[in-house]
Amino acid sequence: MKKKISLLGATGSIGIQTLDIIGSNPNRFELVSFSAGKNIDKVREIAVMFFPKVVSVMRREDADRLEGEFPNIKFVYGEEGLIEVAAHSNADILVNAVMGSVGLKPTLEAIKAGITIALANKETLVAAGDIVMAEAKRYGVPLLPVDSEHSALFQSLNGENPKRISRLILTASGGSFRDLSRKELSNVTVEQALAHPNWSMGNKLTIDSATMMNKGLEVIEAHHLFSMPYDKIDCLLHKESIIHSMVEFEDTSVMAQLGSPDMRVPIQYALTYPDRIPMQNAKPLRLEEIGKLHFDKMDYNRFKALALAYAAGREGGTMPTVMNAANEVAVDLFVNGRIPFIQIEDIIERIMDGHQVISTPDLETILETDSLTRKMVYAMVESIT
Amino acid sequence: MKKKISLLGATGSIGIQTLDIIGSNPNRFELVSFSAGKNIDKVREIAVMFFPKVVSVMRREDADRLEGEFPNIKFVYGEEGLIEVAAHSNADILVNAVMGSVGLKPTLEAIKAGITIALANKETLVAAGDIVMAEAKRYGVPLLPVDSEHSALFQSLNGENPKRISRLILTASGGSFRDLSRKELSNVTVEQALAHPNWSMGNKLTIDSATMMNKGLEVIEAHHLFSMPYDKIDCLLHKESIIHSMVEFEDTSVMAQLGSPDMRVPIQYALTYPDRIPMQNAKPLRLEEIGKLHFDKMDYNRFKALALAYAAGREGGTMPTVMNAANEVAVDLFVNGRIPFIQIEDIIERIMDGHQVISTPDLETILETDSLTRKMVYAMVESIT
Repeated sequence: MKKKISLLGATGSIGIQTLDIIGSNPNRFELVSFSAGKNIDKVREIAVMFFPKVVSVMRREDADRLEGEFPNIKFVYGEEGLIEVAAHSNADILVNAVMGSVGLKPTLEAIKAGITIALANKETLVAAGDIVMAEAKRYGVPLLPVDSEHSALFQSLNGENPKRISRLILTASGGSFRDLSRKELSNVTVEQALAHPNWSMGNKLTIDSATMMNKGLEVIEAHHLFSMPYDKIDCLLHKESIIHSMVEFEDTSVMAQLGSPDMRVPIQYALTYPDRIPMQNAKPLRLEEIGKLHFDKMDYNRFKALALAYAAGREGGTMPTVMNAANEVAVDLFVNGRIPFIQIEDIIERIMDGHQVISTPDLETILETDSLTRKMVYAMVESIT
Repeated sequence: MKKKISLLGATGSIGIQTLDIIGSNPNRFELVSFSAGKNIDKVREIAVMFFPKVVSVMRREDADRLEGEFPNIKFVYGEEGLIEVAAHSNADILVNAVMGSVGLKPTLEAIKAGITIALANKETLVAAGDIVMAEAKRYGVPLLPVDSEHSALFQSLNGENPKRISRLILTASGGSFRDLSRKELSNVTVEQALAHPNWSMGNKLTIDSATMMNKGLEVIEAHHLFSMPYDKIDCLLHKESIIHSMVEFEDTSVMAQLGSPDMRVPIQYALTYPDRIPMQNAKPLRLEEIGKLHFDKMDYNRFKALALAYAAGREGGTMPTVMNAANEVAVDLFVNGRIPFIQIEDIIERIMDGHQVISTPDLETILETDSLTRKMVYAMVESIT
């Protein structure tokens, strides 16, 4: 029987790769619904290729127009549209590949509907990890990681007793600026920041890699996904991105998942878990060709955003929400040329410093905090520039 | 409840490390029986420390003498003694850590008695893998690998569907002479051969590492343990011995087990499987301190013994038995200064060339072939020297 898939964020980097896997395995997977933003040409293309039942777009006018073109597809829009795709399109599994905290509500609705979640949207767990994990537990819904690092941890934990974990070790390539000092960072351009050495990803993720905030978000995500205290989550610089992450156990054994950098592998694993299927057009790992793997201690002074993420995670409550929202806006401002690269982490730090933590926030409080933080960052930048 | 352990080969390298683990965990493990050779002082030491019920030694006179000294212990001897320790001392698990094909019969008897086997004696599977695996299957007895490479493969397969394996990748340090050319090998001494760069092991194993026959025996062992055809078993040079081996799956994911070189880790894992327990006095792996891991293509011309092992494994029947027996004798002759290092593989090759394979031998045929081969090697060397 085919696995029915709904996909949030179909036109982004992860979304496109998810479609590639679905399209390469038509006897295994069926796309029943997807969401996109304003890229209507791409929506048409996907609709023609996959014949989904429900499609959500950002704007009502686009939904209306498309409904005329595709009479057999139901078009919805906005936040309600996302929820309809995620939770009410009769899917077996939701791939949440939108960027930012917009993925939170649809994920919670899908959990309530008993739909397995393949989570590429790390902000969902960063902003509201306690709530999401509690709901997943309550409804008995598996949360499968799609991030290559968390997929590696998840695969390394296969068949293991989680009580025996001594450390989760997240590997980090170091991003576009790994060889620059903090001083050299002051002059970097948007173009330089967008050139990631190993992975081809969206803009937000590439900038987050350059600041190392991406690793920080992953640390918080790992904390929630694997119920692991922060002092048992370490980061290790590994510039080749071949070992995707590792788990150290109490007997000193370390289990690791390795591979050529290809996001389709963890995406497909989430879709086929607990089984695996052959990967189409993939480059197998040949360590004899790579020759050397390098490892270096993570420098938390050099990568201040990572230290901020650990601090936010340890503080808990609304602090990770605030950190995440401040980061999203700051990255957006940098990509649009409004602030220099180095100011991204300064903004996050100042916003975090000024925040009064609410320790066990409900969903409304989290969403309000998120929204309020975004406004504060814009106001702060307006006042500076 | 304590796990009751019987140990074949208590005074060897693996045996001593097994005793270390049992002694460090007196609430979990109990040594009910063990075997040793002629090192009677060491037998006394172990007897005083562990209070076993049955002890086997090589010679009758030693058994008689020890029985007078330890009235509460039953002393047995010879091959029957090994079988009594392995199969009739009421153990939950047999650690087979003797060297050479002498471990074969006791292992088969333990399997018939329903005792789980922790197998460090790779010659058991090399000489009679088809028979041993068939018996283990018939009696539903788990065969747990103790070798660090096979333990790594076993751990990497945890929770996985074995049908999805595309390759087993055995890592090889390259042994004492990894940086020498074949020409330079002609003048190496016994002392040089016994200095292994990473692992502290017995003489036979260290010489087998230097010839790469050890990796060859491991290939054949992996073939049997994991029911894997030879063209899906690869070897990779990895001089640091940090990645202990890997499994590549059809989706291109590679799972690996890593650690500091410490044989106690795989030994303990076999004793605690499927759980793990903390490792006493162990050195955790710190990749940031190691800095680099190196990988290189295996050179089957340089390491001729490995090519011979693949050939023997593919040929099957009595050929691996013959190869293994020839190797055991040739190593012994080298260690005793009777032949130069480079002649080890020449002897194996000539003996293999002259052997008429029996394709599905029974146990008696295997034992006869083993014994006959040993005589032939001695005769061959006598005639040369």
